[in-house]
Amino acid sequence: METKFSNMAMLEELGEIGKTADGGVTRFSFSDNDVKARERIFMWMKELGMTIREDEAGNIIARYGSGEGPAIALGSHIDSVPNGGIFDGPLGVVLAVNTLRALIEDNVEFNNPLEIIVFSDEEGARFGGGLFGSKVMTGTLEEDALSRKDKEGISAYDALKAYGYEPDNLSKARRYPEDFKAYIEVHIEQAKVLEDIDYPVGIVSGIAGIVRFDAELFGKADHAGATPMNLRQDALLGAAKAIIAAEDIANRAGETTVATVGQIEVKPCAANVIPGYAKFSFDVRDTNITDREWAVMEIKQELQRIAEDLDLDLRITDIISVPPAEINEDLIKLAEDLAIKENIKAHTMVSGAAHDAMNMTLLTDVLMLFVNSRDGVSHCPEEFSSEEHIDEANKLLYHIVKELVTN
Amino acid sequence: METKFSNMAMLEELGEIGKTADGGVTRFSFSDNDVKARERIFMWMKELGMTIREDEAGNIIARYGSGEGPAIALGSHIDSVPNGGIFDGPLGVVLAVNTLRALIEDNVEFNNPLEIIVFSDEEGARFGGGLFGSKVMTGTLEEDALSRKDKEGISAYDALKAYGYEPDNLSKARRYPEDFKAYIEVHIEQAKVLEDIDYPVGIVSGIAGIVRFDAELFGKADHAGATPMNLRQDALLGAAKAIIAAEDIANRAGETTVATVGQIEVKPCAANVIPGYAKFSFDVRDTNITDREWAVMEIKQELQRIAEDLDLDLRITDIISVPPAEINEDLIKLAEDLAIKENIKAHTMVSGAAHDAMNMTLLTDVLMLFVNSRDGVSHCPEEFSSEEHIDEANKLLYHIVKELVTN
Repeated sequence: METKFSNMAMLEELGEIGKTADGGVTRFSFSDNDVKARERIFMWMKELGMTIREDEAGNIIARYGSGEGPAIALGSHIDSVPNGGIFDGPLGVVLAVNTLRALIEDNVEFNNPLEIIVFSDEEGARFGGGLFGSKVMTGTLEEDALSRKDKEGISAYDALKAYGYEPDNLSKARRYPEDFKAYIEVHIEQAKVLEDIDYPVGIVSGIAGIVRFDAELFGKADHAGATPMNLRQDALLGAAKAIIAAEDIANRAGETTVATVGQIEVKPCAANVIPGYAKFSFDVRDTNITDREWAVMEIKQELQRIAEDLDLDLRITDIISVPPAEINEDLIKLAEDLAIKENIKAHTMVSGAAHDAMNMTLLTDVLMLFVNSRDGVSHCPEEFSSEEHIDEANKLLYHIVKELVTN
Repeated sequence: METKFSNMAMLEELGEIGKTADGGVTRFSFSDNDVKARERIFMWMKELGMTIREDEAGNIIARYGSGEGPAIALGSHIDSVPNGGIFDGPLGVVLAVNTLRALIEDNVEFNNPLEIIVFSDEEGARFGGGLFGSKVMTGTLEEDALSRKDKEGISAYDALKAYGYEPDNLSKARRYPEDFKAYIEVHIEQAKVLEDIDYPVGIVSGIAGIVRFDAELFGKADHAGATPMNLRQDALLGAAKAIIAAEDIANRAGETTVATVGQIEVKPCAANVIPGYAKFSFDVRDTNITDREWAVMEIKQELQRIAEDLDLDLRITDIISVPPAEINEDLIKLAEDLAIKENIKAHTMVSGAAHDAMNMTLLTDVLMLFVNSRDGVSHCPEEFSSEEHIDEANKLLYHIVKELVTN
């Protein structure tokens, strides 16, 4: 495999559309910048002789190769968070295009058609939710998704309509298991696992499912000087104990269990008043649902114990609970074998972040590849993956897809 | 001792001046409500035949009894926090007035003059700082105190001037040890120590000095799902460990040591992002300076250890450090003996809150009495002390003052 087209040059070209003052990119789905980015991608796809259509939800579906049979689909997205990076999303699209280009240049014979899917509104940055296009395609869109509004009060329904899509006919965008042989998505890692071991590429063995809930502790907002230690009902002390318990429980749960308290708020929040109220968020994820459910249960029980010990009242509010998604074992094996054969350093690992691939597991066998992220940062202008690492991922993707389209 | 005047009726009368919609009171020093409250108090003082003056800082100094010799001073304040209670401050003034009234009614012979001092701007609610009048009287006012401005941009200097005081001549308001034989202040407890043991009255054995500092921890704001537990630099986890350490250290320090983390803020504060930054406040107090300094040192060392363990950067910013104030042992003994003799349930205890009495220890022997506060709340409309408890404190104050003025 060798291609004349630079992945980095194409990423930078796309990154110009919606570019922000500090070098990031703001490009929501169903916006003028989205249209410009689509036009660029259509151009690339047409050069390769693909048949392009957009479905009712704004997903781009481009097809190459003969026949109506089940496709090998490569997918990603081109929308961004506000002032995000140029890699999160577009990387998967560019690598899909350049993989197809290389297969064509190498005169590979396609026994199965190849599809490139660009999912709409993956980030959910404008209307909340996220994974919009893949939810529509798999029939899992939330009932209120279209009525959600952006900051200007424009609903998702109106935004879709304004750009020529068909929010009233989303069911027509549904697809089915018989449409696919496999789905592959390449994404930046968004963490430091690969950087830490100096590997360019990750082979994802599972996508963690998220449980999110809020805890509120109610104590007594007393005078910080006048109230002896033994007469306190300190809500922040309870929160602190729960934060440490969550860390400990995640460490004792599965190897891939993670638990995070990302938000905390206390009232009245004055240096000389004992906090009478604390609200804090829990985000617990794992590819292994048993380990995750154990961790969630332990954290909730620990919250109960802490509240009782400190004479606090507790309220827990469940927010979301998404099951983990399974990556196909044969595809993982294929990717691992090809990485060894082609001398590509690839590390098998889990994905803690959610991706459209999660939804695609409802339709077909799924594989995900990760590319080393510098400093593990994403969703900001500093997001970066090196050309060398990207090209290694492209090489592995090429060999996997070659294997799948020819068999 | 028996007086025709009800303490509660007088407190309620004063509470009408600056009364808020929900039954609290907003009455800053150097305001129209302050003037009205002063007029009411002048009336009470005049009825008792006191000689009244206001000093350059707006302190009311009313004197009863013959001679220019050193006085037994009873002091408190009548300013409030925004929407505060009717007891914090006025209670001490009303009890001083009614104690003098009872001594006169009982034909007690005054060998020493009695003074009632109403300190200006104790709360510092308008310009910050607090204890303004007693700082001026003891020559400890901060250099920038007069240039501090309220929300409307009016400086303390201009506010004093607008109400006829003399900010340019504050040094004339200085007083000296030879002016006093003793200073006594009665205040609501502002905590639940007395309520917890069902005592009406507290005899204060020391006023805690405050140390306040902020800690900031700098970690890394990584993806909550994608970042394994062992690759995290979680600033909130560090804060949680420090909060628990502070609680533990305060418990292991002296009997009267208290430590409070009242404020906390994390960034970016999103449920799916590991906090990369946490800022939180420490308030450490004790009447025993050795125990307090040990606790402060231990907390700071623990912060260092936690930061190192979790690979976080630490910044500590010292804010204030006020030494504890000593209550005169002979006066404590006198109060304890009289409480036993008069069958008044009085509990010897420390004051965690700051009071003008703290500054008065620079000039003379000081005693403070506390009155049981319902639910320990203060600085809010719910602030309450029962008539029964107030009258018990008044009885004890009467006997202490009687002893002092006659000897």
